Amino acid sequence: MHAVLHYLKANQPRFIRELCELLRFPSISAQPQYKRDLRACAVWLTQHCRQIGLKAELCPTPGHPVVLARTPRRAGRRPHFLVYGHYDVQPPEPFELWESPPFEPTIRGRTLIARGSADNKGQHFAHLKAVEAYFKTGTALPCDLTFVLEGEEEVGSRNLPPFLRARRRELRCDAVVVSDTGMPAKNLPALTYALRGIVALELTLRGPARDLHSGLFGGSVENPAMALCQLLAKLRDARGRVTVPGFYDDVEPLTALERKQFKRLPGTEESYRRFLGVPELFGEAGFSSHERTTARPTFEINGLTSGYQGEGGKTIVPAWARAKITLRLVPGQRPGKIIKATVAWLKQLCPPTVRMEIGDCHGSMPYLVEPTGAHARAALRALQAAFHREPVLLREGGSIPIVNDFKKTLGVDTLLLGLALPDANAHSPNEKFDLDCFAAGQRMSALLWPELVKTA
Amino acid sequence: MHAVLHYLKANQPRFIRELCELLRFPSISAQPQYKRDLRACAVWLTQHCRQIGLKAELCPTPGHPVVLARTPRRAGRRPHFLVYGHYDVQPPEPFELWESPPFEPTIRGRTLIARGSADNKGQHFAHLKAVEAYFKTGTALPCDLTFVLEGEEEVGSRNLPPFLRARRRELRCDAVVVSDTGMPAKNLPALTYALRGIVALELTLRGPARDLHSGLFGGSVENPAMALCQLLAKLRDARGRVTVPGFYDDVEPLTALERKQFKRLPGTEESYRRFLGVPELFGEAGFSSHERTTARPTFEINGLTSGYQGEGGKTIVPAWARAKITLRLVPGQRPGKIIKATVAWLKQLCPPTVRMEIGDCHGSMPYLVEPTGAHARAALRALQAAFHREPVLLREGGSIPIVNDFKKTLGVDTLLLGLALPDANAHSPNEKFDLDCFAAGQRMSALLWPELVKTA
Repeated sequence: MHAVLHYLKANQPRFIRELCELLRFPSISAQPQYKRDLRACAVWLTQHCRQIGLKAELCPTPGHPVVLARTPRRAGRRPHFLVYGHYDVQPPEPFELWESPPFEPTIRGRTLIARGSADNKGQHFAHLKAVEAYFKTGTALPCDLTFVLEGEEEVGSRNLPPFLRARRRELRCDAVVVSDTGMPAKNLPALTYALRGIVALELTLRGPARDLHSGLFGGSVENPAMALCQLLAKLRDARGRVTVPGFYDDVEPLTALERKQFKRLPGTEESYRRFLGVPELFGEAGFSSHERTTARPTFEINGLTSGYQGEGGKTIVPAWARAKITLRLVPGQRPGKIIKATVAWLKQLCPPTVRMEIGDCHGSMPYLVEPTGAHARAALRALQAAFHREPVLLREGGSIPIVNDFKKTLGVDTLLLGLALPDANAHSPNEKFDLDCFAAGQRMSALLWPELVKTA
Repeated sequence: MHAVLHYLKANQPRFIRELCELLRFPSISAQPQYKRDLRACAVWLTQHCRQIGLKAELCPTPGHPVVLARTPRRAGRRPHFLVYGHYDVQPPEPFELWESPPFEPTIRGRTLIARGSADNKGQHFAHLKAVEAYFKTGTALPCDLTFVLEGEEEVGSRNLPPFLRARRRELRCDAVVVSDTGMPAKNLPALTYALRGIVALELTLRGPARDLHSGLFGGSVENPAMALCQLLAKLRDARGRVTVPGFYDDVEPLTALERKQFKRLPGTEESYRRFLGVPELFGEAGFSSHERTTARPTFEINGLTSGYQGEGGKTIVPAWARAKITLRLVPGQRPGKIIKATVAWLKQLCPPTVRMEIGDCHGSMPYLVEPTGAHARAALRALQAAFHREPVLLREGGSIPIVNDFKKTLGVDTLLLGLALPDANAHSPNEKFDLDCFAAGQRMSALLWPELVKTA
């Protein structure tokens, strides 16, 4: 193990250069024009996996390909762990807010700035580098590993569940390891034991057959933008609660233990407010910001589009108005039930003066795993050894839909060992990844496999 | 006069070709990248005015130039009338809804389709062709005429009032004639005696310093798109009335005579609903659609912008949300007072969780002139003779801010003799101008000058 850790330490500059290569691919899965770039990124990853000694395969799907890479199998049954990551990234818009181009990785001090650096290229790359260290130092890995790196996480991982089902036999494993979450501070490593689920939908209200001159027609016809505002306004009440009937019925309340554990986290509400740059924090009455973002469900507008958006003005009644919406769910809530209730509520609230279309509906379950099992304890030991600090147990507000598919298809839990700091700007301009976390993540990964094998 | 009318009849094909040339300039005043096209359009118009025998001048302003063209002055004081038009056009977006490219004029039957065809190039071009007919047939014009063709009508005519003040002496006249309004049907010419005013503003709500990951941060911070929806939702009540305090205080009620006159207009509420393509009409309770669009004030959202608008999804809390807003005012209301009341109301309603910015505020007065004066009666005679039908008196819902400036600076009223049919799609995709109305408009203009001179 000493050789492995020494190899990691000695090769950081090269690892960073390689990560920068990976970050140069604009692998934006939400935008069809980048299909070739996603493929090029997957090809690069496949070749890189082969270079470090893995047996890698580029697996086509109806969408973007999956990179499947495994350690050479030995005779006999050994523990087998799966490492999941995704090479696709969020759209970089708005471009003008990036201080450096999103796909030209830029290093400032110990920070690497690029779209995808934290979410998720940098994080899964740390695990690849740990395996490389085992291979290149001739150190025996105490288990088999399989990397599953997909290209559709940011658009709902539609093709991964069928892929897992088709490859169920070769992917059978003892646990899944995912680094795609966060840690509260550079000196506070974390194991995440709960995630929020999500429901996404696109709501369009259509009024007149075409944009109308607001002077000639305004006043005699519903303005779809106003109808959309009045409709959406009713979805959240003054206490910050979602108004969809039955929305909170299945929400599991936080335990006293959990609320106490959250008090260990650094930072104050005021420092958090300053970090976000808002004049006042706002959320569901009766909960702290951390609770609101991790253990309470939400209704969020992700985008609004209607009428004229260019410079100056255009005096029209727009023909239509659209909102992109996501709801975050917490353990207990089920996407199917929430979609049904939300759509029914929207239909009930929609005025007869416009036509409603609801599209692009999809969802994923929230996730909750008890953090006291043998694997979790092994992961906590690896975190402690890699970071030289006592790790914390976290709930997180994001969604990693695929963890539910691992449970369903492979019957195993997922260890969420995140390496992104709170200011990583995932999904925002100037996304960044801390290079110390990158290095510590490699150590954690190297130390994790012997710890996990001990539990077998 | 026979020669003039014969010349007009004989030259229609060429006039249409020339109008198509004029329509090919993308003279979009709202979008700075078209500055050169506006200038090119103004240069073309200046040269065209010279070709037909006018003394034309391209007059620079701090914005787009004004084309000033006058008939050669004779000795002695003769009646002098001013013809106003604008060569700038509305933005053509959304492009995908145009059945032919907006700046490639297309003729279908008796309809000419192009941005600017009705609003306003086709309409002022009809007046130019009438003057050409006088000149080319050697027929004596009984008065002096000056054409003022500006390039900033669609962006508020900011530079025209100073231009009028600077040229007050040479623009001194007996009345202004403007064809920039509509007529209810091909067989129903109209004199418009009232226009709505307008107030425009741009409202931006700013929340977090950057777009935030809606999983990691959603629930703990106001969503500016939701704040905007909840704010704008409060601006109009369930009865279709604007909620700004004092908004209706100065509205002059319709007279019984006016409501009776409106009953002469063709069409039913049901045919109007079908024409607009809406499932139900909607507007202020207690008024007909015609009254709502011409004699009642409104609050309209012209555009909404927030967050991610591309394909697929992006799970963010947007950093900001913006609405482009216009309010239409009716006689009695004053833009300054309405701007003040609206801004105060928005500020009062704005939650403390976001920062509000209000920009791009401008407005113009409503217009009302008694349609029983000598000039109006002369215009009605010219309309009757040109269209062979009894004209109707109209209020119109649009705004032509400059008519108030003519009154203020030159002390004269404006005759609004519109040639656009209700389906002209002004400010909409597939804007069009009826070629029979184009021809009748030329006849009307030719017949107008002797009628107006009779009143002197």
